Amino acid sequence: MNKKQLFEQIQIKKSFLCVGLDPVLENIPPHLLKYENPVLEFNKQIIDATKDLCVAYKPNTAFYECMGLKGWETLIKTWQYMPEDIFSIADAKRGDIGNTSAMYADAFFNEAKSDMSFDSVTVAPYMGKDSVSPFLNYKDKWVILLALTSNAGHSDFQLHKTPEGKLYEEVIRISSQWADSEQMMYVVGATRGLEFQNIRRLAPDNFLLVPGVGAQGGSLADVCEFGLNKECGLLVNSSRGIIYASKGEDFAERAREEALKLQQEMEAILLAAKLI
Amino acid sequence: MNKKQLFEQIQIKKSFLCVGLDPVLENIPPHLLKYENPVLEFNKQIIDATKDLCVAYKPNTAFYECMGLKGWETLIKTWQYMPEDIFSIADAKRGDIGNTSAMYADAFFNEAKSDMSFDSVTVAPYMGKDSVSPFLNYKDKWVILLALTSNAGHSDFQLHKTPEGKLYEEVIRISSQWADSEQMMYVVGATRGLEFQNIRRLAPDNFLLVPGVGAQGGSLADVCEFGLNKECGLLVNSSRGIIYASKGEDFAERAREEALKLQQEMEAILLAAKLI
Repeated sequence: MNKKQLFEQIQIKKSFLCVGLDPVLENIPPHLLKYENPVLEFNKQIIDATKDLCVAYKPNTAFYECMGLKGWETLIKTWQYMPEDIFSIADAKRGDIGNTSAMYADAFFNEAKSDMSFDSVTVAPYMGKDSVSPFLNYKDKWVILLALTSNAGHSDFQLHKTPEGKLYEEVIRISSQWADSEQMMYVVGATRGLEFQNIRRLAPDNFLLVPGVGAQGGSLADVCEFGLNKECGLLVNSSRGIIYASKGEDFAERAREEALKLQQEMEAILLAAKLI
Repeated sequence: MNKKQLFEQIQIKKSFLCVGLDPVLENIPPHLLKYENPVLEFNKQIIDATKDLCVAYKPNTAFYECMGLKGWETLIKTWQYMPEDIFSIADAKRGDIGNTSAMYADAFFNEAKSDMSFDSVTVAPYMGKDSVSPFLNYKDKWVILLALTSNAGHSDFQLHKTPEGKLYEEVIRISSQWADSEQMMYVVGATRGLEFQNIRRLAPDNFLLVPGVGAQGGSLADVCEFGLNKECGLLVNSSRGIIYASKGEDFAERAREEALKLQQEMEAILLAAKLI
C-alpha cells in the first residue's frame, strides 16, 4: 500500500486507528478454548469486529513466537485473514547485517517464500544503513524505524546527546537520507507528547506509528496537536485497551465499542484539521 | 550453561569456536534435496562433523524465518539436535518494551512454551534497560548485547560521540549495571580489531561474541591480541567459511577441515596465553 492509498483509507474510514493484535493465551475468553486454534479465532473475531473502524493491524511477533511453531502458524494465518485494504504491520523490531536483513525482508514481505507479505515491518536502527536498506527493495512496502519509544528504557540511549542532537533525532535525520516519506515511517511513543513538535520539524512528511495511547498513558489530543500533517501522518495504535476490553463472551462487541470511541475521537480531530 | 562451565568446555576442546548455522536453501548440496527437510539434514551433518571442535552453535533466526513455517520448525529441530554441552546462541537481535521482551525470552528460553531453550539470545540495545532485563530472569541464560558490530552501518550510530564516550561505549558502560559478566556478553565485530583494547577496559570480564572472522575480513590474531582475558572471554564465530567450504557431497568433511584449522589456531593461542 502506498502513501496516497493509506491517506485515502484514513479519509474513507475517518480513522487513523491501528489495532495491535497481541493475544496472550491466558487472556483469551474461555468460550474460545474449544476451537482448534483459540488465538487465531480470537484474532479473527477481533478483526471482524473492528475492520471498518481502523486502517491498520499490527501483530507483535513476540506474542506469536512465544507459542512456538503453533504461534508462527497463527501469525501467518492472522496475516492471511487481514483485509487487503488495511495496512498491515509486522511489529518485529528486526535488523541485522545487510545479507541477513534481506532474509528478514523475505520473512515479512515475500509471500512466495514465507507465506506472509505485510505492508511494513518495524526495524531497530542500531546497526545502521545496511541493516535497514534491504527492507526498502520492495515497492510500496515500508520500514517503520524505531525513533523515540514509549517505554521507560527510552532514556537509556535514545536521549543521549551527540554533537548534532539527541540520538533519536540523529536516527531520524540520518535515516531520512536512506528513504523518503513514501517508504519510511517512525515509531514515536505517545507518552512523548512534548517531543512531537520537534519530530515534525525533522520529519514533516513521514507517517508516525504511535503506540502508548491508553494503557501506556499517552493522550491522543497531545499527540495530534503537533503530530498531524497534511496527509494525517499518524497511525495511532491501541492494543490492550481494545482487545481485552472484556474477557467474556462479549469480547468482540466490547472491542468494537472501544475502537468506535477512538474512531469517533479521530473523526472529530480530522474534521477540525480539515483533513476530511 | 554458566561461565565456569563455558570456560571448562573451552579448555576441554582447546577451542573458542562458534559455528554459525546460517543455511540458505540455494546453497544446500544437491544430494541433500532428497531429504524431507534438506536444511535440517544439512545442519545435522554440520553439527556431527564439527561438534568436537567448537564450543558454540549460533543459528541466525533470519535464515529460518525467511522459509516460513517450515523454517521455524527447522530452527526448533536444529536446537533440539545440538549437544547439551555446547553453548547455544539464538542470534535473533530482539528487543522490545518490557512485557514484550518477556515474550521473546519465552520464545528462546522457555522450552515448555516454545520447544526451544537456547543458552543465550542476541539483543539490540536501542530500547534500553526494560527491553533487556526480561531475558536476565532465567538462571544460567545469557543476553548477548549488540555493542560494536562488524557491518558497514556500524558507523552510522554506534560511533556517535556522546558526552561520556562513543555510543557503543555507553551501551557497554550502562548495560554493565544491568547484569554482570555471568549473564551479559557483547557482540563485537572482528573487523574492529583496534577497538578491542578499549572494549576490554570497559568490559574486562565479559565474554565477547566475535563475528566477522574470515568472510567479513577480520583477523583472529588481531582479535585475540587484546580480546583474550583470564577465562578466554571470546567466542569467535565463523559461518560461511565453514558451512559452505564445499557445496558438494564432501561438504561436511570440508566443513570439518575448516573448523579444524580454526580450532588449531585457537589451541595455539590458548597455549601461548597459558589458558590450557
